[in-house]
Amino acid sequence: MTERKDKLLFTPGPLTTSATVKQAMLTDLGSRDAAFIRVVKEIRSALLGLASVSADEFTAIPLQGSGTFGVEAILATVIPRDGKLLVLANGAYGARIGHLARVLGIDTEVLTTVENQKLDPAAAEAALARDTKITHVAAVHCETTTGLFNPIERLGAVVKKAKRLFIVDAMSSFGAVPIPMAQFGIDYLVSSANKCTEGVPGFSFVIARQQPLRAAEGWARSVSLDLLAQWQGLEKGGQFRFTPPTHALLAFRQALTELEAEGGIAGRGARYRRNYETLLAGMLALGFQTYLPPEDQGYIITSFRYPASPAFVFEEFYTRLSDKGFVIYPGKVSSADCFRIGTIGRLGTADVTGLLAAIKTTLAEMGVTLR
Amino acid sequence: MTERKDKLLFTPGPLTTSATVKQAMLTDLGSRDAAFIRVVKEIRSALLGLASVSADEFTAIPLQGSGTFGVEAILATVIPRDGKLLVLANGAYGARIGHLARVLGIDTEVLTTVENQKLDPAAAEAALARDTKITHVAAVHCETTTGLFNPIERLGAVVKKAKRLFIVDAMSSFGAVPIPMAQFGIDYLVSSANKCTEGVPGFSFVIARQQPLRAAEGWARSVSLDLLAQWQGLEKGGQFRFTPPTHALLAFRQALTELEAEGGIAGRGARYRRNYETLLAGMLALGFQTYLPPEDQGYIITSFRYPASPAFVFEEFYTRLSDKGFVIYPGKVSSADCFRIGTIGRLGTADVTGLLAAIKTTLAEMGVTLR
Repeated sequence: MTERKDKLLFTPGPLTTSATVKQAMLTDLGSRDAAFIRVVKEIRSALLGLASVSADEFTAIPLQGSGTFGVEAILATVIPRDGKLLVLANGAYGARIGHLARVLGIDTEVLTTVENQKLDPAAAEAALARDTKITHVAAVHCETTTGLFNPIERLGAVVKKAKRLFIVDAMSSFGAVPIPMAQFGIDYLVSSANKCTEGVPGFSFVIARQQPLRAAEGWARSVSLDLLAQWQGLEKGGQFRFTPPTHALLAFRQALTELEAEGGIAGRGARYRRNYETLLAGMLALGFQTYLPPEDQGYIITSFRYPASPAFVFEEFYTRLSDKGFVIYPGKVSSADCFRIGTIGRLGTADVTGLLAAIKTTLAEMGVTLR
Repeated sequence: MTERKDKLLFTPGPLTTSATVKQAMLTDLGSRDAAFIRVVKEIRSALLGLASVSADEFTAIPLQGSGTFGVEAILATVIPRDGKLLVLANGAYGARIGHLARVLGIDTEVLTTVENQKLDPAAAEAALARDTKITHVAAVHCETTTGLFNPIERLGAVVKKAKRLFIVDAMSSFGAVPIPMAQFGIDYLVSSANKCTEGVPGFSFVIARQQPLRAAEGWARSVSLDLLAQWQGLEKGGQFRFTPPTHALLAFRQALTELEAEGGIAGRGARYRRNYETLLAGMLALGFQTYLPPEDQGYIITSFRYPASPAFVFEEFYTRLSDKGFVIYPGKVSSADCFRIGTIGRLGTADVTGLLAAIKTTLAEMGVTLR
């Protein structure tokens, strides 16, 4: 095969992955064979380590499908028929949790706050005091809409004090931001194989406190998305109930090995932070403005406002950058025209510098002047 | 990388795939990038061709997750709240459709017949005449439990005559057995990427008649499994609603190219049939008995009865074969002790002959004598 260079993906995923992660997919394993069962066991064990929790109290459950399937599986499984969900939302992914729950027929309150501000623990506390029917609280950690990091540790303290269960969507942060689940009061955390762990897409995973999950027997609203049955299947014979994406799991095991070699969450977080700082400095120098104030901005993905110039057309900007080998991401903020640039995946500061040069060239080609 | 030979997978999937199919996964594509959107479009178009239907009347919808997710997505989306499902079941996969529907809260009747006999169109006709509340009928084509081919053409005629909608689970046959959907009266067909099309696992696909699917607006019981929303998303911008398994889709495009190069469904079916005939002759010569009578047996997967010898222990038989590089499959027949051998995937008669030699050696090692 001739070596062909992929475009670099400055997105929230699928991401640029290492060659070795992709090469791990060059093997066909039987899904019921001992070699594959060992791979799954290793992955589940490593995930608990990344969440700083023990196998006595927690369990890691990979589930086929995208991250949204994992979020929906938690909701479809662990909320009793007479339960009620409070969703704390400050972006599209928080709003999506509310939508998922309502379609499942779950009694749901969505407490929506503005997209450029962090979720407020005091507001959550008041909502829980107001409504004793609420059994579960859900929040997004890194709201990929904007790139904002929500204060999940303080939210967890509020939820625990009120004796409710806490669900965290850590889709785009897990693996690059420390989230000690037990310490933060998180009962269920969900993320996806193709985010900061740098695997390929094909499955999500839930890390769950065993006790409340075990109590959810008989509540599931779906078979495919039944997290408890998925767990029980994995515990029984180490096998998935339904055909797993064997190649994506092989890639993920390799990805976890490479995460460890990079110094774990601390090492990976440091690289992503350098990527972000390089990007931010370069974009500000070019005259771009961020959507968020810097103090609320995480280092995963950043929303930039469209330049005021009438010559700026996002689709053209995107295509010209893509043609140069750099894939960025459209915006999702509801109240402002933005585009997004991710700083995760197998990318370093040299790649970010390359992107910045391409952006500068593209602006000149398009005749866009900033300030 | 050193070349390492994978074990050969004589299973219902994941299967042995070609090196070129796996190598297609060595690329990271952005899920919203034009190159990936083209891949998805090509795949959807090719699937319609394999089902012998036109893009005016039908549509192909890939969905993240395993085949079961695809089956559940049909049920969760297309059956109205006041609808009723009749499942015709003669095996574990038929029974599973009934289970999926009931957990979704769908009014469901399962007409169960014995596992070693084909579904009976006359019985289906009588059930539909008896219960006018039934709106949808579901059946499995190749019942992977046994390897039996059900008479979906004749069942389809009965369902159409009774003016109901017909759902066919063609998981383990689509791509190797001709299924002209419109001619057979099938409204919804579901299969999976890692079966006879010889892709890797990661998604299923539904081929649906557009008119009834379009009428299902607002009926979905799940967001992740909402087939109509998935279709609408794909039609709007060519993109998946939620992160697709980009690598598995790249592998699938390559797999479809290789299917066409093999002479399409006819060519692939002929190879699988040769595999099956070689297997059957060899196993009978060794003294094994099939579970099904030969006239009901398909050429996808075959159930063999455990030998009567007390020295035969399936787990040991399986492990010894696996150690020799041949992975077979446990049984699923409820009333008899069987194991299964698949004859699909990138395997030819020389591979089957190799398996037969390994089985002969293994029987001798275990001290198992037949007849």
